[in-house]
Amino acid sequence: MTTDSHSHLDADPAFALHRGGKLGVRPTVDVVDHEGLALAYTPGVARVCSAIAETPELVGTYTWKSNLVAVVTDGSAVLGLGDIGPEAALPVMEGKSLLFKQFGGIDSVPVALDCTDVDDIVETVVRMAPSFGGINLEDISAPRCFEIEKRLRERLDIPVFHDDQHGTAIVTVAALRNAARLTGRTLGDLRVVVSGAGAAGVAVTKMLLDGGVGDIAVADSKGIIYAGREGLNPVKAELAAISNRAGLQGSIETALAGADVFIGLSAGEVPESVVATMAPDSIICAMANPTPEIHPDVARKYASVVATGRSDFPNQINNVLAFPAVFRGALEARATDITENMKLAAANALADLVGDDLAADYIIPSTFDERVVPAVSAAVAEQARKDGVARA
Amino acid sequence: MTTDSHSHLDADPAFALHRGGKLGVRPTVDVVDHEGLALAYTPGVARVCSAIAETPELVGTYTWKSNLVAVVTDGSAVLGLGDIGPEAALPVMEGKSLLFKQFGGIDSVPVALDCTDVDDIVETVVRMAPSFGGINLEDISAPRCFEIEKRLRERLDIPVFHDDQHGTAIVTVAALRNAARLTGRTLGDLRVVVSGAGAAGVAVTKMLLDGGVGDIAVADSKGIIYAGREGLNPVKAELAAISNRAGLQGSIETALAGADVFIGLSAGEVPESVVATMAPDSIICAMANPTPEIHPDVARKYASVVATGRSDFPNQINNVLAFPAVFRGALEARATDITENMKLAAANALADLVGDDLAADYIIPSTFDERVVPAVSAAVAEQARKDGVARA
Repeated sequence: MTTDSHSHLDADPAFALHRGGKLGVRPTVDVVDHEGLALAYTPGVARVCSAIAETPELVGTYTWKSNLVAVVTDGSAVLGLGDIGPEAALPVMEGKSLLFKQFGGIDSVPVALDCTDVDDIVETVVRMAPSFGGINLEDISAPRCFEIEKRLRERLDIPVFHDDQHGTAIVTVAALRNAARLTGRTLGDLRVVVSGAGAAGVAVTKMLLDGGVGDIAVADSKGIIYAGREGLNPVKAELAAISNRAGLQGSIETALAGADVFIGLSAGEVPESVVATMAPDSIICAMANPTPEIHPDVARKYASVVATGRSDFPNQINNVLAFPAVFRGALEARATDITENMKLAAANALADLVGDDLAADYIIPSTFDERVVPAVSAAVAEQARKDGVARA
Repeated sequence: MTTDSHSHLDADPAFALHRGGKLGVRPTVDVVDHEGLALAYTPGVARVCSAIAETPELVGTYTWKSNLVAVVTDGSAVLGLGDIGPEAALPVMEGKSLLFKQFGGIDSVPVALDCTDVDDIVETVVRMAPSFGGINLEDISAPRCFEIEKRLRERLDIPVFHDDQHGTAIVTVAALRNAARLTGRTLGDLRVVVSGAGAAGVAVTKMLLDGGVGDIAVADSKGIIYAGREGLNPVKAELAAISNRAGLQGSIETALAGADVFIGLSAGEVPESVVATMAPDSIICAMANPTPEIHPDVARKYASVVATGRSDFPNQINNVLAFPAVFRGALEARATDITENMKLAAANALADLVGDDLAADYIIPSTFDERVVPAVSAAVAEQARKDGVARA
């Protein structure tokens, strides 16, 4: 039997916890007798179906659709593991669904797809969309993830959100806004270096520019991205056009000299000698997991504010501060889209929660801060109404 | 607001019960602190993902996949309502998922598709299949449902089951076996008339023939189906080739004269004068919902055994006696398919539960009989092992 021959794995508490999976479906109504069955199923259910057929918006009221998010992946860029395929990606997707429920009260279901072509993924998600109130894209490799999200947003009238991009961007922008405030600056005062031009790097850069950051240089594995660099894919070419106004070329070291902010979204390592060249009062967000690009103990020697993606250091920049609240707000507003304004509203609301407690070790709320979802979701829903994408 | 403007609908208890839908997703593990998060999500989850990438069968042990069934529809043949589309079909699919859980302990999720083309449906389901342990097809119109099921069974290594066909067939065959026993006959002694050549009619006919019924005449809206009848679609042509050995032509009335069994799976009505022409000791299963083709009070005047699809008459032939148990058995055996033998084993196990209590008013267990799932699922799993389709 499969189960028994692998039971030694359960010595690892992560495996023991995962046995049988992390999710279940729960009926929210009881069917204990013929009368219950006659209401929840035939013949009673037919009246509800007919009403929805006649008045389609009722599907939001009389099914679970309006609180249900599909967590969609193709398993091509899972954590730091890379392209491990749809089935091996399922534990991460179940984890995401678990967090959606635990933090946002949102029902969600992993949908790991056995296809990687952009057209195929888009068509598949469009076809299954009637069942869902929102689509959370997850761990789909760049640059396909950008095109998939763009086309799904165009085709669907429910929120579509690629968490690796926008979840990361929202929390990073919130953290950086507070770090700037703490050091007496605004986003506009900052020259930023972003390491990594994958899903997160691209989204963080765009959102920081939207948020008013002065200049940003983005580096990928070949160094700083600049207009005209050979072999840029369309997404990086667009990035080159909107970032790096200084026209820097060369390695990330060049960009870091005198920079105010380092944002690490890659697996690379930055030597201490390079960290030492950054501007005074610098801000370091080294978010590679599990090994930050710059160890916090090193970073603190030079920087005024240090953040990582890890829970065992202060200032954890974790997407769970964003995606449950963003969807909660979007679903409550029955939004047809999650606009850039809504993402910025989420970042600002998240940053504002820190308030007067702002300190070098507290630029972002804790993962388990219960104020996050109510405050951020309310800001998102309000912005959805301002942007004209709300239906409720 | 959508919700409020339609709240008058909740005066109908079916609507009140459906408000907010009938399902929720429930985490089966708690994440209350950073330690929990580090096991259920990053970094702990990465070890589980890597193990599955290396040993694919572990997905059955460490995710919910092996207990998760997709309830797939295109909304083209919903109850008696017809083609109402995917969103209006959702309440029925949620009801199905509720029954999967309540009766079979199986997690399931409605997936209502916004496409009706056979190729599109097949491709979509194949692509999303990595997330699921089984596929239950539901309320997809004939004859497309036959082709869709056939191709999905060929393409996938998880159980695929069209409940409108096989669930109905299993329960009907079980009921008929017991009715024959009660009246001192075997299935081979019976001449059967099936009214309706949709999903259920076709599957019931095939399974009855597999089960050894002597002869069956099937009638659709144009009368008895016979070899050479003009305009038969491929499915009905196949039916003509294997049924109606007597070569009957004309209306269903012709077939019913002297017939031992009537099985009603259509919305048609059979006049009392025609019922009167059936053979002595006849068996009438009038399963149209909510209005049986022959009212039980009329049927009882002529027949020895009468069954319907309704809970307010004796002998309710209800799919819920089949699909939770069939999937329970198939999932427990980690079956790659649900074979015809497994369906027959389910029917026989269901029939056997009646045992010595057999009576004209008790040819099939009650919907809420708690013996059904253990007995039927065990028979299905055992047959899966005999048929060489079990992986556990």
